[in-house]
Amino acid sequence: VPTYKLTVAYDGTGYVGWQRQASGTSIQGLLEDALSDLDGRPVPALGAGRTDAGVHARGQVVGASLDRDLAADAVVRALNVRLPPAVRVVSAVAVASTFHARFDARAKTYQYRIWNAPVADPFERAYAWHVPEPLDVVVMDSAARLLEGEHDFTAFCAAETDTLSTRRVVMRSSVRRQAPQLALVTYDVSGSGFLRHMVRTIVGTIVEVGLGRQPVEWLAEVLASEDRRRAGRTAPPHGLCLIAVQYGEDSLPPAETSL
Amino acid sequence: VPTYKLTVAYDGTGYVGWQRQASGTSIQGLLEDALSDLDGRPVPALGAGRTDAGVHARGQVVGASLDRDLAADAVVRALNVRLPPAVRVVSAVAVASTFHARFDARAKTYQYRIWNAPVADPFERAYAWHVPEPLDVVVMDSAARLLEGEHDFTAFCAAETDTLSTRRVVMRSSVRRQAPQLALVTYDVSGSGFLRHMVRTIVGTIVEVGLGRQPVEWLAEVLASEDRRRAGRTAPPHGLCLIAVQYGEDSLPPAETSL
Repeated sequence: VPTYKLTVAYDGTGYVGWQRQASGTSIQGLLEDALSDLDGRPVPALGAGRTDAGVHARGQVVGASLDRDLAADAVVRALNVRLPPAVRVVSAVAVASTFHARFDARAKTYQYRIWNAPVADPFERAYAWHVPEPLDVVVMDSAARLLEGEHDFTAFCAAETDTLSTRRVVMRSSVRRQAPQLALVTYDVSGSGFLRHMVRTIVGTIVEVGLGRQPVEWLAEVLASEDRRRAGRTAPPHGLCLIAVQYGEDSLPPAETSL
Repeated sequence: VPTYKLTVAYDGTGYVGWQRQASGTSIQGLLEDALSDLDGRPVPALGAGRTDAGVHARGQVVGASLDRDLAADAVVRALNVRLPPAVRVVSAVAVASTFHARFDARAKTYQYRIWNAPVADPFERAYAWHVPEPLDVVVMDSAARLLEGEHDFTAFCAAETDTLSTRRVVMRSSVRRQAPQLALVTYDVSGSGFLRHMVRTIVGTIVEVGLGRQPVEWLAEVLASEDRRRAGRTAPPHGLCLIAVQYGEDSLPPAETSL
């Protein structure tokens, strides 16, 4: 029973999110249907991150075990012909049968995109939150960096979270304008794990600082309060993208099938 | 009767192109409906370039005259609330009533995007042609540069063209890979004007060189032949984008409403 680590990119527009739901089309459902069709029996697909409805991914990681023994390249091709163009298996690599996409993940990297110009961009309308008022990216970056380190992120966590611990380690948290289109502002964050709505609530809070409604230090106050009501609003899902999931060297062979 | 030069960006996916057609939704039709609704009488919108179905624009230029005397910023806002999110008026500027978006244009710049990797990118599926086989961008660029200068472009022109002259001046014609995603290959071309399907046929021809099926000098042979049957196939429309239209200083006041 060969096990594969699949790297999956998807445009989350119009889907109910990664996880199967009672109604609507999920990315997990599409992948499980493709895997099951390929293998001739029901195949579960386990994702590293449960992205919400409308959230995108460039580097979601999915573990799946097949009865058929196929070369990694053949798995990529066979799945892509069974998937819609909005979902692509970028690479596959054979891993130990003990591989667990979620529990073995050491870190995840997300990017949140903001289109900061008076007029929205037609090409970013499904991939960036449109904030028409000018943002001060220097103070946003200062605020974002206050979240680096190990903290209790309860203040940035959806009420319905059912996690055991709300402590997480954030390795990188930064904001910058992207050249050449300076209207594009990105928030890049890497961490040991993320609570439900955590990245989007951080973005909603940092934007308050960028609009001049709150000072930089407010971010530290909100964090220390451990009170969700203190943070800003949750930024919309379509600006968010799961960029990559990092694993320890042990759980993977050295070379991946390249893009 | 104030006349405005409008800069318009649109995602051409699903539209019949710039020009009004007997059936389907055109960008011109959407703009004329918005202008007419704003002005309370039928307002024609004249575009600088007649983009084909599925072709995009970042900098289409449109001329329109209104009875109402509105500030340029007010025109931008009033039109955008009347347009779908796929079409945005990026800026408006008051110009002389003699302004003609097409005849006054000195040059146009197009970009054609190619996604050159074994697996397609979900986020580029509507904005780039997927060419899975490796492209040699160095020879493609050499071939592209053979088109710079004044030439008869009949070989790269759709049969149904009804133009008086097939001579055009190409100021820039170049191919490169874009960092950070080296899978993205772009063809950038600026010229005094373009024949129907000219950019897409140039791209289809240059790709033959990039795939190693033809030598660089073949581009010069095809050009000199003035025979459409000698060129490569017409690349698909969704990779093409009208980036900008240049005008002489005379036809415009100095400052534009900025993005």
